Amino acid sequence: MCRFLAYQGDPVFLADLVCAPAHSLVRQSLHAAEAKTGTHGDGFGLGWYGERPEPGLFRDVRPAWSDENLTSLCEQVRARLFFAHVRASTGTATTRANCHPFAHGRWLFMHNGQIGGYDRLRRRIEAMIPDALYDARLGTTDSEAIFLAALANGLARDPLGAMTRTLEAVRAMMSAAGVDEPLRFAAALTDGETLYAFRWACDGRPPSLYFRQTERGLTVVSEPIDGRRDGWRPAPKGCALIAREGRLLAVEPLGAVLARAA
Amino acid sequence: MCRFLAYQGDPVFLADLVCAPAHSLVRQSLHAAEAKTGTHGDGFGLGWYGERPEPGLFRDVRPAWSDENLTSLCEQVRARLFFAHVRASTGTATTRANCHPFAHGRWLFMHNGQIGGYDRLRRRIEAMIPDALYDARLGTTDSEAIFLAALANGLARDPLGAMTRTLEAVRAMMSAAGVDEPLRFAAALTDGETLYAFRWACDGRPPSLYFRQTERGLTVVSEPIDGRRDGWRPAPKGCALIAREGRLLAVEPLGAVLARAA
Amino acid sequence: MCRFLAYQGDPVFLADLVCAPAHSLVRQSLHAAEAKTGTHGDGFGLGWYGERPEPGLFRDVRPAWSDENLTSLCEQVRARLFFAHVRASTGTATTRANCHPFAHGRWLFMHNGQIGGYDRLRRRIEAMIPDALYDARLGTTDSEAIFLAALANGLARDPLGAMTRTLEAVRAMMSAAGVDEPLRFAAALTDGETLYAFRWACDGRPPSLYFRQTERGLTVVSEPIDGRRDGWRPAPKGCALIAREGRLLAVEPLGAVLARAA
Amino acid sequence: MCRFLAYQGDPVFLADLVCAPAHSLVRQSLHAAEAKTGTHGDGFGLGWYGERPEPGLFRDVRPAWSDENLTSLCEQVRARLFFAHVRASTGTATTRANCHPFAHGRWLFMHNGQIGGYDRLRRRIEAMIPDALYDARLGTTDSEAIFLAALANGLARDPLGAMTRTLEAVRAMMSAAGVDEPLRFAAALTDGETLYAFRWACDGRPPSLYFRQTERGLTVVSEPIDGRRDGWRPAPKGCALIAREGRLLAVEPLGAVLARAA
Repeated sequence: MCRFLAYQGDPVFLADLVCAPAHSLVRQSLHAAEAKTGTHGDGFGLGWYGERPEPGLFRDVRPAWSDENLTSLCEQVRARLFFAHVRASTGTATTRANCHPFAHGRWLFMHNGQIGGYDRLRRRIEAMIPDALYDARLGTTDSEAIFLAALANGLARDPLGAMTRTLEAVRAMMSAAGVDEPLRFAAALTDGETLYAFRWACDGRPPSLYFRQTERGLTVVSEPIDGRRDGWRPAPKGCALIAREGRLLAVEPLGAVLARAA
Repeated sequence: MCRFLAYQGDPVFLADLVCAPAHSLVRQSLHAAEAKTGTHGDGFGLGWYGERPEPGLFRDVRPAWSDENLTSLCEQVRARLFFAHVRASTGTATTRANCHPFAHGRWLFMHNGQIGGYDRLRRRIEAMIPDALYDARLGTTDSEAIFLAALANGLARDPLGAMTRTLEAVRAMMSAAGVDEPLRFAAALTDGETLYAFRWACDGRPPSLYFRQTERGLTVVSEPIDGRRDGWRPAPKGCALIAREGRLLAVEPLGAVLARAA
Repeated sequence: MCRFLAYQGDPVFLADLVCAPAHSLVRQSLHAAEAKTGTHGDGFGLGWYGERPEPGLFRDVRPAWSDENLTSLCEQVRARLFFAHVRASTGTATTRANCHPFAHGRWLFMHNGQIGGYDRLRRRIEAMIPDALYDARLGTTDSEAIFLAALANGLARDPLGAMTRTLEAVRAMMSAAGVDEPLRFAAALTDGETLYAFRWACDGRPPSLYFRQTERGLTVVSEPIDGRRDGWRPAPKGCALIAREGRLLAVEPLGAVLARAA
Repeated sequence: MCRFLAYQGDPVFLADLVCAPAHSLVRQSLHAAEAKTGTHGDGFGLGWYGERPEPGLFRDVRPAWSDENLTSLCEQVRARLFFAHVRASTGTATTRANCHPFAHGRWLFMHNGQIGGYDRLRRRIEAMIPDALYDARLGTTDSEAIFLAALANGLARDPLGAMTRTLEAVRAMMSAAGVDEPLRFAAALTDGETLYAFRWACDGRPPSLYFRQTERGLTVVSEPIDGRRDGWRPAPKGCALIAREGRLLAVEPLGAVLARAA
């Protein structure tokens, strides 16, 4: 289980959201309040959009709370759209390639959750990644595999549909394998223009996910970064948030099949 | 504040004490029970005596709980005397050179505690390190500086006296500088033959320290590794434990001046 | 392309072969003489057999030439059988999981060479790894995939046959995919008792491999560690060396198909 | 000995100078042409000025040639003034704190060279750092110590004078200690507005240093990044270059005492 933050809106220094707040993501790396694990010290990552269509990516294996490079980068970089993530491994190794977010072309993806029985299903999930994308499989996490599979399932032209189909496929694999543990999924996805955030679980108990809409922009978080409840709304279960230019445009249920499963 | 473990006795695999127990040091790195901080993820270290008079040293900046090298080494190495340490930085950087234990010649030293006002006193404390030892100053911690100063103060011929004199000198510097924060000190020291453990604080509130004497050997820990109280005795405040060949030989008060200060 | 060393014989401190010699493996990491690349700074690894049937494993991403942990470990550990490896990546990431040697149960494997067209073939090579072993696929290298595939191909009961069949299969995949670049393979393998070393290439130009048999034991190296030629014999092309208890027992051609291909 | 690059002028993506050229700094990390050592794999660093008066700092211990974070950051960050450095240690540990550039307030400093007898002089050189700056002493290199001493010697109001006085003082310490090895110094320094580059040695053999002035800006390098000579001029020995807004304004001899020594 992990903690993450996605922002879209007027350009802000990353430090303003990632480091400075009382219960910032960096502080959550040491003391999260709503996660199954309090400590998220198994690496971290930043993805942000600057002057190029492709995002910058900065990931490292050390805990976020002690990384000087992370602090300095967050102080310097100002962005209208960025992702930040602190990781608590559910079993896979602590390597840069296993840290979120994952980037491919213009896309960024990060995830908090778990695929029940992943150790048994990994091979089948990876089989969804086509040859053309397989070279981009750099790590061993379920999250990266889902991202690459979703890319193969048409993420570029139909992000919600592609992600839904991918989760459906994983869910079917889990059923076929007789996996009892749940599939739980909170995630954020973007092509550099539209921001999508997902909250869903097959057992109706998805990871926490909140959002705050202000004049300046939209912030989506695993848990509020100011340690308060006001100003933050829980993302509805079984739904995707869709935003552009820092405005939440829609909250859509995640398709019939997934909605049924939830 | 940190957590540590020292063992002397019949040779055991390090994993038997460092990794396997229910509340092992590796588990304490993620969830300590008696420390000011629950998480000790700012690096770790092992020091052990094998076939040479000088100890082996293995220190790294990642959290102990996820380090495959630490796990494998603890599985393989069997020793009659070893130190293990997980670190929670009180401000200094997360570098290998700042991880405990520290080694010099045949000596090993590790520490849990704090020197109040260290950021102001560092220069004066380092001034206690003579030229001949200054090249061995590899990091920036108070702990390493105290060790090197104690070496200069005659650790080789009078370990208790040298450590007492060093703490006295630091205490005097603190007073002279008008430092209000306390000097708290739990530590372990060895030349490969005799094991010393210290528990002292200028305000009478030293860090926790326990020991367990069995047929097989002596184990000294920041907190019990089995999560239980029976079998473990708290080290008396203001005292040093002295052991040889796995037998606790003496518990000595830490000198007149220090005893008064405590 | 990488540099490696395997030793079997009377127990020696690893430092005696890995660090101390004039052209030791650690020095080769900075200045190799016979490799395509002079620098082998993309991680390193040690595997050794101590008191357990399973080997110890110590791998890290930093260059061998500057790693204090490697130095200390080599000073302390004495073994009758060990592998050491310094890596020059041919494209895959610098992660611990991509460093050699690879361990599985009692087995150790390390490799120097290349699979032509691996980026296109990776998926098919990984498909040789059965479900039961797939969880052990921790990195992304061709070398680890070949090792796991060879395990699946019966390494435990027929090491030479299994490795030969695996190379044949890879060679067939390369042909089918129209890959022009060669398959070149120098490797060492052991179950903790018997040591195998391989030297083969589909184009008759395998990586360098030498061995030295003395009273004390057998050393197999990518290039002589003393910078001299005398005392070292090149491993014959297209052959496997087989040793037990530090004695070279046989030099066998690598099967009919491979021999033809070579 | 190290390799570095400093740029001031029209904003450019760091990658255009640090990564892309045929003999870029990243390539020099693996194969430098004019350095005493060909390999500069003991860490790297970037310092750059963005929207704040203080520079950003990104330093890591891995070789520059394989670091994905470095690549991505250089692709994203565009700056009018930045420093980049690849390190070959002359003895001090490979830690982030020992990597260049060093930052303090608005200042950045990086160095290529050596202080003869530093292991014997370190303590005295550090004694030049006043209490108020000593807390900023994070590593153990001669370079960082010289930078902090120069800050104490008045870098803010008289950069050339302060650096000259610092080098004089070090030179006097070397003489007093009977050090035979030379003091050699190529360095770059900036407060975010004015760029200074130094080339000096007490034995008249300073490290290589070149500069190229174009319409777009000024680039100062240890060796030309395009592998050619035309367009690049060697920095005169015993001099400092002074530039503002990407224009070389002056080339000044480094003071009477230093000039005599050179």
